[in-house]
Amino acid sequence: MNRNDVTEKIISTKVAKGLKWEDVAKKVGQSKEWTTALCLGQMTATPEQAKALGKIFGLTAEEQKWLQVVPYKGSLPTQVPTDPLIYRWYEIVSVYGTTIKELIHEEFGDGIMSAIDFSMDITREPDPKGDRVHVVLSGKFLPYKQY
Amino acid sequence: MNRNDVTEKIISTKVAKGLKWEDVAKKVGQSKEWTTALCLGQMTATPEQAKALGKIFGLTAEEQKWLQVVPYKGSLPTQVPTDPLIYRWYEIVSVYGTTIKELIHEEFGDGIMSAIDFSMDITREPDPKGDRVHVVLSGKFLPYKQY
Amino acid sequence: MNRNDVTEKIISTKVAKGLKWEDVAKKVGQSKEWTTALCLGQMTATPEQAKALGKIFGLTAEEQKWLQVVPYKGSLPTQVPTDPLIYRWYEIVSVYGTTIKELIHEEFGDGIMSAIDFSMDITREPDPKGDRVHVVLSGKFLPYKQY
Amino acid sequence: MNRNDVTEKIISTKVAKGLKWEDVAKKVGQSKEWTTALCLGQMTATPEQAKALGKIFGLTAEEQKWLQVVPYKGSLPTQVPTDPLIYRWYEIVSVYGTTIKELIHEEFGDGIMSAIDFSMDITREPDPKGDRVHVVLSGKFLPYKQY
Amino acid sequence: MNRNDVTEKIISTKVAKGLKWEDVAKKVGQSKEWTTALCLGQMTATPEQAKALGKIFGLTAEEQKWLQVVPYKGSLPTQVPTDPLIYRWYEIVSVYGTTIKELIHEEFGDGIMSAIDFSMDITREPDPKGDRVHVVLSGKFLPYKQY
Amino acid sequence: MNRNDVTEKIISTKVAKGLKWEDVAKKVGQSKEWTTALCLGQMTATPEQAKALGKIFGLTAEEQKWLQVVPYKGSLPTQVPTDPLIYRWYEIVSVYGTTIKELIHEEFGDGIMSAIDFSMDITREPDPKGDRVHVVLSGKFLPYKQY
Amino acid sequence: MNRNDVTEKIISTKVAKGLKWEDVAKKVGQSKEWTTALCLGQMTATPEQAKALGKIFGLTAEEQKWLQVVPYKGSLPTQVPTDPLIYRWYEIVSVYGTTIKELIHEEFGDGIMSAIDFSMDITREPDPKGDRVHVVLSGKFLPYKQY
Amino acid sequence: MNRNDVTEKIISTKVAKGLKWEDVAKKVGQSKEWTTALCLGQMTATPEQAKALGKIFGLTAEEQKWLQVVPYKGSLPTQVPTDPLIYRWYEIVSVYGTTIKELIHEEFGDGIMSAIDFSMDITREPDPKGDRVHVVLSGKFLPYKQY
Amino acid sequence: MNRNDVTEKIISTKVAKGLKWEDVAKKVGQSKEWTTALCLGQMTATPEQAKALGKIFGLTAEEQKWLQVVPYKGSLPTQVPTDPLIYRWYEIVSVYGTTIKELIHEEFGDGIMSAIDFSMDITREPDPKGDRVHVVLSGKFLPYKQY
Amino acid sequence: MNRNDVTEKIISTKVAKGLKWEDVAKKVGQSKEWTTALCLGQMTATPEQAKALGKIFGLTAEEQKWLQVVPYKGSLPTQVPTDPLIYRWYEIVSVYGTTIKELIHEEFGDGIMSAIDFSMDITREPDPKGDRVHVVLSGKFLPYKQY
Repeated sequence: MNRNDVTEKIISTKVAKGLKWEDVAKKVGQSKEWTTALCLGQMTATPEQAKALGKIFGLTAEEQKWLQVVPYKGSLPTQVPTDPLIYRWYEIVSVYGTTIKELIHEEFGDGIMSAIDFSMDITREPDPKGDRVHVVLSGKFLPYKQY
Repeated sequence: MNRNDVTEKIISTKVAKGLKWEDVAKKVGQSKEWTTALCLGQMTATPEQAKALGKIFGLTAEEQKWLQVVPYKGSLPTQVPTDPLIYRWYEIVSVYGTTIKELIHEEFGDGIMSAIDFSMDITREPDPKGDRVHVVLSGKFLPYKQY
Repeated sequence: MNRNDVTEKIISTKVAKGLKWEDVAKKVGQSKEWTTALCLGQMTATPEQAKALGKIFGLTAEEQKWLQVVPYKGSLPTQVPTDPLIYRWYEIVSVYGTTIKELIHEEFGDGIMSAIDFSMDITREPDPKGDRVHVVLSGKFLPYKQY
Repeated sequence: MNRNDVTEKIISTKVAKGLKWEDVAKKVGQSKEWTTALCLGQMTATPEQAKALGKIFGLTAEEQKWLQVVPYKGSLPTQVPTDPLIYRWYEIVSVYGTTIKELIHEEFGDGIMSAIDFSMDITREPDPKGDRVHVVLSGKFLPYKQY
Repeated sequence: MNRNDVTEKIISTKVAKGLKWEDVAKKVGQSKEWTTALCLGQMTATPEQAKALGKIFGLTAEEQKWLQVVPYKGSLPTQVPTDPLIYRWYEIVSVYGTTIKELIHEEFGDGIMSAIDFSMDITREPDPKGDRVHVVLSGKFLPYKQY
Repeated sequence: MNRNDVTEKIISTKVAKGLKWEDVAKKVGQSKEWTTALCLGQMTATPEQAKALGKIFGLTAEEQKWLQVVPYKGSLPTQVPTDPLIYRWYEIVSVYGTTIKELIHEEFGDGIMSAIDFSMDITREPDPKGDRVHVVLSGKFLPYKQY
Repeated sequence: MNRNDVTEKIISTKVAKGLKWEDVAKKVGQSKEWTTALCLGQMTATPEQAKALGKIFGLTAEEQKWLQVVPYKGSLPTQVPTDPLIYRWYEIVSVYGTTIKELIHEEFGDGIMSAIDFSMDITREPDPKGDRVHVVLSGKFLPYKQY
Repeated sequence: MNRNDVTEKIISTKVAKGLKWEDVAKKVGQSKEWTTALCLGQMTATPEQAKALGKIFGLTAEEQKWLQVVPYKGSLPTQVPTDPLIYRWYEIVSVYGTTIKELIHEEFGDGIMSAIDFSMDITREPDPKGDRVHVVLSGKFLPYKQY
Repeated sequence: MNRNDVTEKIISTKVAKGLKWEDVAKKVGQSKEWTTALCLGQMTATPEQAKALGKIFGLTAEEQKWLQVVPYKGSLPTQVPTDPLIYRWYEIVSVYGTTIKELIHEEFGDGIMSAIDFSMDITREPDPKGDRVHVVLSGKFLPYKQY
Repeated sequence: MNRNDVTEKIISTKVAKGLKWEDVAKKVGQSKEWTTALCLGQMTATPEQAKALGKIFGLTAEEQKWLQVVPYKGSLPTQVPTDPLIYRWYEIVSVYGTTIKELIHEEFGDGIMSAIDFSMDITREPDPKGDRVHVVLSGKFLPYKQY
């Protein structure tokens, strides 16, 4: 057994039972973004969170243990994603990458925006011309250290 | 001459004169995000915007014309970016890609978040534990059409 | 179980029963292009469409549910397709890519032709020198937004 | 000197003089699609066509000769195009590739749609919900030969 | 079941029974080159050919049907083949590719040598210094169309 | 100076003077296939051959010396060639690669067809349905040695 | 002018003058590791550091300004480094990568060792069986945030 | 059975039993770094070490034999690792690679730091601003031999 | 069944029985280098050799037949090998490749050293400073043919 | 100036003067293998060796200094070499890689054959059936260290 088996069982059960990530997240007690990433094999659960997921998805004790093991992260099968929705995000990095770099350096100096001390919030932004996906990313700025 | 020559001249002049993107944007009359992307060869200027940039960076009439030509977009030299700041964004797509996909589909159904009818806003989020980079992405949701 | 299992079952059944995509499409009530893409795991069905396919291909209730889940899209196993028919399309993009770009920008300005709000129609074009494949692609033009 | 030098001169002159591909095509006496591909280094000119282009873009006799040499074709710098407009076409091949294959084989049997005995027509399709790019592709069907 | 399963069964049976491709081809009634490509999953059989192969390799009715489905072509697991015999052919394309291009264009003008309306004949060429592999390739010339 | 400079000078001069490879080959005293490969930087000349080419293309003594240096071979800029004519040859290797392997082994046993002790002959094959490119490849069979 | 030009000038001058990185670092007032990375185009200088380097390497005012611009980082020309010394480090990541991951997670839980808030110290470790390279890496542990 | 099966069994058992690498290492009698690498399929055990691991993880005699076979090394599924923790190490090689090369050559001359006669020690470095991962790498310097 | 299954069975049996390649080779009657390559799926056996291996490894009649089928060669899973021992050989080709090319051409003229009419001998070379691996490679020189 | 410029000058001069590597090596006082690798930019010279090469190839004092700088090694432009002579060596690694690994481990245990403490000797082996290239590789065995 490995983490991937647990992820597949969670997804299968979700389809079969017609669950929603948002509802799963409420029972786990974290945001829907973090909780979904956990269920998709990218984050690490506490014993309580594993138990909560165990109840929802019918996971065995061993499967719950796997949720508490830090996974080998990276959720995409290719360097350039083929799925159109995910590709658009890759395209944003490709087209705006140097722009993002310039503006963060202009404001903060040399360093990075953390992808670890990081949160994300995805919501619907109503718009008469067609609703929009509204995403807030928040990452701690980490300055390069001189030594 | 090509667009790349104009981009390099803009960057060189910016370093030599010690300009800031934010100030350039004010004179162009657009956001700092869009204006920087324009200067870095990813967006297309109107004649007025090209003229404004021409004044700031000392561009010839021909160079201003190139700013009005739609460029071949994509600002990164490799499929997986090597620069740490830009890589962190690639990592967000890699780690959270399937999560983003799940949550947008849960809210909107099948479709994508546009990277064309799209805007981005990067600001400093003060935080006692260390300031954060706060980014808002807004992209129109485009549903897949059945036919 | 996953979507891929459903796709394989559909294809297997189609070969075993000697079905035609055109007939499947009529029962689904959409074009043969969209319906085939759905059956090959690239589009998302409504419950009615899933039921219709369920009848044709003998799918279980759970398999029908998978047809209603948005799939991870991308139907080809390699970046450059090896199949000669599909490669010719890749070659059109390779040889004519910059031409297509120039002409759409000349007519519409900066933006893209959508691959989401998009339809395709493939028909036989009789020709005494040898029949031709006649394809009509129609994609909404999406202008780049300034902000 | 090589063909690429001629292509760059043509593009540079076009920007400097503000020419349109459609007008160039009329003087060459072919469609705007084929003529643009010729100017972008993908097709081969007759002496008359080379002369016509020579007049428009101020090409020397040697440069006109290069237009009559069959070029090494392929207009894109990477296997997966980074430019959003061209990427959408790559995405159509990626998402619909197997669908296109199935439907052409269903209608014609084993073989390919030629990318050589081929024509393309790109026009604006007015639409109250936003104009569309309308593309017609026509390629001779070539059946696989048994021997 | 898919075409690959049929290919593997054919190869397994061939090894177990000690058959020769040349004899298989005679019973199919086509050349040994085309017939081998068919058996290796690259070509499409008529019902009669499928039946003939069914007898030789003990294929079920469903397996025979799969032989009549146009396969996803491409027989090699990597872009650059690792097998020394096949690599030598890749090397011929690599070393002589531009030569082949020049000479075909010199004789025929712009266009290609078809790999669809194509035949191949491989024979032994006796030679006192060591026998040679003698290969004849014949492909229809297809001129690029102006439009 | 390097071999590539000499190749480019030869090609440039050929276009400017309107020469044909077939005529060049006659003056060199070898086949048009080998001579073209030599001119394109893939083969090594004798002093006499270098002198003959020197006369035709106006090469200096040093440039003639470079023709006598064994070149770093490989004439294509990418692993998978983008040029349609050369790609068709790559496709032949991809689709027929395992077939070629099977048939040569069936006739000769384990070993390869040499690409070094090798010759190629490209001619026009008149055909009422459209002339064909007729290619003869002849390579010595080299058996794998046991030891 | 760009940062790469400054890096090349620094390296050229270092060879011509026979300087040592350790001595350069003393004048810059930082460790030899950080200072070398700065000179090789990977770090960002303060105005004082740029001035100090300006004196040592004879840099103009504009070149000194480039040292203060955050560079596009990544010092290697290929994904897998070809240089044997650098490859050994890549090999350590390849062979010990999962080991490093397991042990850091065992000690710290889910998170990463920062490559930004990071320092490195390379020294000679005398050893009778052959001196050793002794490297100390120190990176802040950053825990994954739940939200 | 192969080494990979043994590795998977060890990892599965470790999760199920909640073991720690440090404790495993004590029973094996080697460092936690080397022992973990052994368990993850990168190193080769002596019969005694295999027996010790056999007791801990319930390995059969045959599985213990596989631990004594030199494995095909390399623990990562992609050239550029996707896991954030391991990527940071790849980034260190990418950003500091040329720096490391310069400083080792400055101290030792031409040669490499061995990754074979090599050891690694990973510990927690307490720090009021946040604990740090402290890593010591020690590799024998091997000078290039002249001959 | 395929050749790979036979290879895996041979390796499994070798580990379980604790056999040595050298002893296997003696019973096959060929060198240990060629025999090991045969057992690892790279060479082709005669019926007698297959029978000898059958006895040693307990192979069925069908498995022995597979040893007599010419295999698809290439023993490594990636273009650049990750295993340190094999990588060193890749590194020798990378670092010394152009040197080897220059010296063989200086001695023999244009052509190659055959990897088919080829033998290899690996032995221990005792050395007080540490024993060495001594390898002799012998390949027939094949001159490029002019035609 | 960089090392590559020096390499190109050496090669250019060698062609222009018609020198042989063997004679160059004698004046440098090392083997022809090591000396050629030095001249091709892969090894590092002592001041005396640099001076000797300076005399032969007319190198300036600065160019001689570059010969004494440890180069960034790796002499090939692609991961899989396209040149047929060098490719045959890559093929040896590909086909015999696992064999070499097995036999060295059988004789020496876990470890590698050094490519640093390494020498190579290439000679002509006269043979009535065609002369052979005879190569001796000698690399120190380095055992993996337990710790």
